[in-house]
Amino acid sequence: MSTGLERFSINQMTVKQLSLPELVEACVELGVPGVGLWREPVRAHGVEAAAKLVRDAGLTVTTLCRGGFLTATDPAERSAALADNRRAVDEAAALGTDTLVLVSGGLPAGSKDLHGARERIADALAELGPYARSHGVRLAIEPLHPMYAADRCVVSTLAQALDLAERFPAHQVGVTVDTYHIWWDDRAPEQIARAGAAGRIHTFQLADWTTPLPEGVLNGRGQIGDGAIDMREWKGYVEAAGYTGAIEVELFNDGLWARNGREVLAETAARFVEHVSR
Amino acid sequence: MSTGLERFSINQMTVKQLSLPELVEACVELGVPGVGLWREPVRAHGVEAAAKLVRDAGLTVTTLCRGGFLTATDPAERSAALADNRRAVDEAAALGTDTLVLVSGGLPAGSKDLHGARERIADALAELGPYARSHGVRLAIEPLHPMYAADRCVVSTLAQALDLAERFPAHQVGVTVDTYHIWWDDRAPEQIARAGAAGRIHTFQLADWTTPLPEGVLNGRGQIGDGAIDMREWKGYVEAAGYTGAIEVELFNDGLWARNGREVLAETAARFVEHVSR
Repeated sequence: MSTGLERFSINQMTVKQLSLPELVEACVELGVPGVGLWREPVRAHGVEAAAKLVRDAGLTVTTLCRGGFLTATDPAERSAALADNRRAVDEAAALGTDTLVLVSGGLPAGSKDLHGARERIADALAELGPYARSHGVRLAIEPLHPMYAADRCVVSTLAQALDLAERFPAHQVGVTVDTYHIWWDDRAPEQIARAGAAGRIHTFQLADWTTPLPEGVLNGRGQIGDGAIDMREWKGYVEAAGYTGAIEVELFNDGLWARNGREVLAETAARFVEHVSR
Repeated sequence: MSTGLERFSINQMTVKQLSLPELVEACVELGVPGVGLWREPVRAHGVEAAAKLVRDAGLTVTTLCRGGFLTATDPAERSAALADNRRAVDEAAALGTDTLVLVSGGLPAGSKDLHGARERIADALAELGPYARSHGVRLAIEPLHPMYAADRCVVSTLAQALDLAERFPAHQVGVTVDTYHIWWDDRAPEQIARAGAAGRIHTFQLADWTTPLPEGVLNGRGQIGDGAIDMREWKGYVEAAGYTGAIEVELFNDGLWARNGREVLAETAARFVEHVSR
């Protein structure tokens, strides 16, 4: 009998108050089959140990978050970013996931040149795509909401992400479809179709849109069902585009982080069943 | 000799700490030829008295802000909104401006239907457009940044605003081009061209993008030159599209509001000369 959780994956950031062993244990108990991991806690635990932990528990690592930050102009910074992204690919491969999420990076200090920054991402992908491919990893460019365009991610729409991705083979570079970042965009459904037709939907993530936004606008992603986004509608778009993979819930939310992590995971699983699966 | 201020208009909200008479006096002293007015302070002063004040000072009222908030589903709310917008048209006409800026409104409480909300705006424009035209006033739909899509304005891009505006004659309905809301959008330059070709750029407003955004993301619009937006680039786009009208600086900024209003106006005029005119 279906639990409604078969496609659910919990992104580690949603319950960052849990240690990796606590997260794995809670997933097993609650019947959560997938996890999206973050590099920092994985490295703190040890990459190989983390890989063994999730593998032994029977969990699927749906993504590793995150590489990217590829917009620097300074040659030393740029070189360091590329090296760090190659390490992220190595870590993804070690964890047994095929998808590395990329957050592109914002404008360098003092720069007003969005177009130039986007072109530097393309240059970096030309180096990183083949490297990732040779390790069995796909890069998934994540367009972030336009409110992050200056300081975090100059790729603001799915159309822009695909314009970048399509310069490379789909098995090297695709996109992350995250409801939080694209829900306002009336072009996003057609862009999801475009991505799906080319096999470029490398992961599908959910967060709800709630207001008022907090200062800095980073940690106000709403629990599924609490906000303005119709999750079933967006699930319908990615499914119509041929996506049958895991659906990750990734929330950055100070309120959720202040609570018991296991309770938040249970609540998130229940919300997933209510607003996504059923 | 050019002062560089010939096309400058100060939006009243930028220096809301000034009373209307103080604002008018400061504009005259500083050689600022235009003002964009807001309904609330105008009504507090009296619409006819405000009209006489600015007229006698030789100032041009470049816009009235604002009508809109047309997304309600409740019939009584909807009827009240339409009546209020007709009053806004009357006030614009009384003030001698030909442009009423419209902020469309957000999702009704509990709604997740952006498309439906946008269609209700179109329905409202069908009533308001002819009324405005008969009073010599043009409606200027303002797309607001996508971060306001849920709670303030379901029209998030210039393309969406034009999709709405083009259902009506250009002398009834056009758009507001405001750098703060569209600077991240790589499609905006082509949409400015589209708007200009049809005579639908009814006003051009400036604010700079600075981070971090404050809680609620309303009052963090940066002083010209302080942020990520290349003002000359955007001025170039609207000019290439045939726009030769006033350029309004509209800042909502707690830091600026805490300062002496006349100093802020002088600073804003100087920034305009430095980053826009020269």
